[in-house]
Amino acid sequence: MRNLNQHTITQAVIERFSNTPDPRLKEILNSLVKHLHDFARDVKLTEEEWLNGINYLTATGQMCDAKRQEFILLSDCLGLSMLTVAMNNDKPQGCTEPTVFGPFFLEEAPQFNLGDDVANGAIGKPCFVKGNIKSLDGTPIPNALINVWQADADGNYDVQYAHLAHPQARGILHSDAQGKYYFKTILAEAYPIPSDGPVGQMLRATKNHPWRPAHLHFMVEAPGHERLITHVFRDHDQYLDSDVVFGVRSTLIADWTEQDDGTYLLEYDFVLNPTAAKA
Amino acid sequence: MRNLNQHTITQAVIERFSNTPDPRLKEILNSLVKHLHDFARDVKLTEEEWLNGINYLTATGQMCDAKRQEFILLSDCLGLSMLTVAMNNDKPQGCTEPTVFGPFFLEEAPQFNLGDDVANGAIGKPCFVKGNIKSLDGTPIPNALINVWQADADGNYDVQYAHLAHPQARGILHSDAQGKYYFKTILAEAYPIPSDGPVGQMLRATKNHPWRPAHLHFMVEAPGHERLITHVFRDHDQYLDSDVVFGVRSTLIADWTEQDDGTYLLEYDFVLNPTAAKA
Repeated sequence: MRNLNQHTITQAVIERFSNTPDPRLKEILNSLVKHLHDFARDVKLTEEEWLNGINYLTATGQMCDAKRQEFILLSDCLGLSMLTVAMNNDKPQGCTEPTVFGPFFLEEAPQFNLGDDVANGAIGKPCFVKGNIKSLDGTPIPNALINVWQADADGNYDVQYAHLAHPQARGILHSDAQGKYYFKTILAEAYPIPSDGPVGQMLRATKNHPWRPAHLHFMVEAPGHERLITHVFRDHDQYLDSDVVFGVRSTLIADWTEQDDGTYLLEYDFVLNPTAAKA
Repeated sequence: MRNLNQHTITQAVIERFSNTPDPRLKEILNSLVKHLHDFARDVKLTEEEWLNGINYLTATGQMCDAKRQEFILLSDCLGLSMLTVAMNNDKPQGCTEPTVFGPFFLEEAPQFNLGDDVANGAIGKPCFVKGNIKSLDGTPIPNALINVWQADADGNYDVQYAHLAHPQARGILHSDAQGKYYFKTILAEAYPIPSDGPVGQMLRATKNHPWRPAHLHFMVEAPGHERLITHVFRDHDQYLDSDVVFGVRSTLIADWTEQDDGTYLLEYDFVLNPTAAKA
């Protein structure tokens, strides 16, 4: 392994991985090196561009902390997140479609009872959300674990505020014995993803806006079913066709209807894929 | 741009870049997205593997600071650095070959006079280094700017020590009126790259050693010539054929000869490529 040139080096690196005990890791690394090298050769990457790339990745990593995940944001804006979701969720017709996870989920969310206000002080127009959790054959799923999270009217998730006393506009609920769920929260509004880091730099350099159409995040889990990670999008949003993270699916769009008292109502049912029926 | 699937998303992302004002940035982003998506599809990346990748890149960025560049180390160990060097340095026969830059260069190195000891207190066997800086036609290059840097006998560069009063085993020199250079330093020895971070984790998971064969780094610059970034490798080193960063070239291997007094001598000439003769 001396005197490697731009053509021979790829095979040399792949040979270096030949004793990797985990066959899946070996497969992934071999493919990664092949595509990474093909990319560099395709564009004939210069040494200056290489260093710019190193610095960009470094800055992306250093933007991350317990509440900010800039690499997920980058993956989202490069379409890698939605591609991964699409590849791994080939569910039968009738199941609720998944979309991107996003960078703002928190493992430690507060528990709520059905009917509670998960906004917990977040600013926004009052909204009531309700629906059913069902299996593919229509059977209600009682006691399903439901995580919800969303941005406030200013377009910020709670984790984007430095000094918040407690989580806001996120929480954990369980469906009732009939598979029903319902809670109070605030109206979902369109918002820009954080653009003060390397991802924002990329969006500006490519003349793209940083906006996501209004949506409410859901993660729904129940025994015997695949975990569903998705959003419900708000109909008529101006960014439905230019979502910066490519996450919109027509079946996930719903109408938040304004009520006589000025509050909003969203009704949406989730259909989970039984594990046995996995496509 | 709704309802994208694993096949249609790539073109959708590329279209998103279509208004990028800088045509080179657009070309690089388009190719990057194509190869990144092809990689994910090729291995059918799972959502768990995607998250592992996000966490790996994040940890790599967070390992970096003013003195540690884990992304360069990763690029080195994936062969991307050597590929980039090879692609961009198609010099005429007779020019000294380049190799990888490595993560341990410092912009701010101390200035030395010819004959000085650049070791500056670094531990190692005494060594004298000398040679000529020449142009491709053999003309000596006076006053060439020479950066040298190397690890000490314990395998560490100065930047790897937390509390060093001043730089060690690195410095800046200039060739004399006859194009000659000479300085004292310590003997180059094989050493392992830092393996306490994500790159070390990859090396262990792929059953690879972290060693580089003994070498001395040089960066040589002179007006009217391409900057040369290279190493001189020590002959007979056991890692010449398994350099963890794929950097060894036969023409860069030289004999560090032991002298009667137990010190070592390295003689090596550098031939720079005139800018006009660029291949």
